[in-house]
Amino acid sequence: MGFWERVEAAMQVTGSALCVGLDPDPARIPGGAGGALRHCLEVVAQTQDVACCYKPNVAFWEQYGPDGMAALLELRRRIPRQAPVVLDAKRGDVGHTMRAYARALFERFEADAVTASPYLGGDALRELTAYADRGVYVLCRTSNPGAADLQDLDAGGRPLYLRVAELAERVNERGNVGLVVGATAPDQIADLRAVTDLPFLVPGVGAQGGDLERALSACAGGRRGSCLVSISREILYADQPGRAAAEFAARIRGVLAAA
Amino acid sequence: MGFWERVEAAMQVTGSALCVGLDPDPARIPGGAGGALRHCLEVVAQTQDVACCYKPNVAFWEQYGPDGMAALLELRRRIPRQAPVVLDAKRGDVGHTMRAYARALFERFEADAVTASPYLGGDALRELTAYADRGVYVLCRTSNPGAADLQDLDAGGRPLYLRVAELAERVNERGNVGLVVGATAPDQIADLRAVTDLPFLVPGVGAQGGDLERALSACAGGRRGSCLVSISREILYADQPGRAAAEFAARIRGVLAAA
Repeated sequence: MGFWERVEAAMQVTGSALCVGLDPDPARIPGGAGGALRHCLEVVAQTQDVACCYKPNVAFWEQYGPDGMAALLELRRRIPRQAPVVLDAKRGDVGHTMRAYARALFERFEADAVTASPYLGGDALRELTAYADRGVYVLCRTSNPGAADLQDLDAGGRPLYLRVAELAERVNERGNVGLVVGATAPDQIADLRAVTDLPFLVPGVGAQGGDLERALSACAGGRRGSCLVSISREILYADQPGRAAAEFAARIRGVLAAA
Repeated sequence: MGFWERVEAAMQVTGSALCVGLDPDPARIPGGAGGALRHCLEVVAQTQDVACCYKPNVAFWEQYGPDGMAALLELRRRIPRQAPVVLDAKRGDVGHTMRAYARALFERFEADAVTASPYLGGDALRELTAYADRGVYVLCRTSNPGAADLQDLDAGGRPLYLRVAELAERVNERGNVGLVVGATAPDQIADLRAVTDLPFLVPGVGAQGGDLERALSACAGGRRGSCLVSISREILYADQPGRAAAEFAARIRGVLAAA
């Protein structure tokens, strides 16, 4: 079963397109890597009925050093198998190095999908897409203020992020490629949806200020599993993570039903 | 002492601009992460007289899982302090995530410098450059075949890689930024040197087919520490790593002296 089929199955079971980000902050969670693991496992337990999938960002685990990577592996293995795991790694390197990252993320850390940077081009991305049963979300238009510095540059008559979407389509020979599009850029999301029906992973709602309703409306119309909304801090540090996740899931469901 | 001063000091002691890549391949080195660590420590011991600095690529350590990250930390701590360590990580993420990567790479793994992806823009890069005593090499024109897919696109009258060089100059407020330019693209290196005197880190010689002499001649003329040439497999798997490193160091010295 391919990644999108697993996402669809999880969407059907949970009735949700919510992806819960698992990004522990040592300033907010005591106990080092072990504390981060316990906290995130508790969040998984409280949200699994309403979360379609989970997205640990590797940075937040790397910051604890080797113990953090051991905790990440343990976390991944304890997330229920019916919930796909997107490892948010944003890796991008030359081909033979990208093969090592693919082994790390898909084989060692057993990711169902990863995020990847497009800057190195198609040969680098193809080392990831070669894993036909895994998903690869290519960074396209990100949610941060600096996104415009390169991504919005005019590149031969259209903005670079649209050229990245074309590159993503080219490396989609196995049908396992999606795009990362930030909720802070609904106009760019609409531009992208006009030229591609690749599935979108949408971070940037909440702490980063993205408008969930505008962004999500712009996403509509893609392929199956075509829109996952990622929320991290607003769930991870909520007084009641389960309730916060349920509320986000309901809002997402409402927008997608209306779109 | 800043990163470039440490590079210059190491260049003076060793008479070398050679950066030895420490990228273990489990298919060529037996014994898992422990074997990789032993092999790389032996290469360090044999090359330290002629290597200006060392560059472990994180991918090759991540592929061993958490044990690999523990081995990378041990490796970093056992590289003699006079040799700067560039952690080749090519990270690029939104600001608050980039802060976690900065903590991971600069604080946990004690990198003297890192490589970073420009795709997320200036705010992301500034989370790294904020560490004033560390170096940040921004990916600019890479050595792989797919580099041309995005990096050579015309972006408002000049290729994207030149726009990346401009971005790198903008985030160089603390004077700790360099560029990664692949030896396989000597013409692009020359274009870059015509518009910037940022230091270059040059991979892609050897297995990737770059022409050392042409590439290095094109690099000449930058600031201090302005050109480090990175060689990995041709030293790591040589019958005599010390001799292979000495030969590369001498070739690099010859070209730089003539330039």
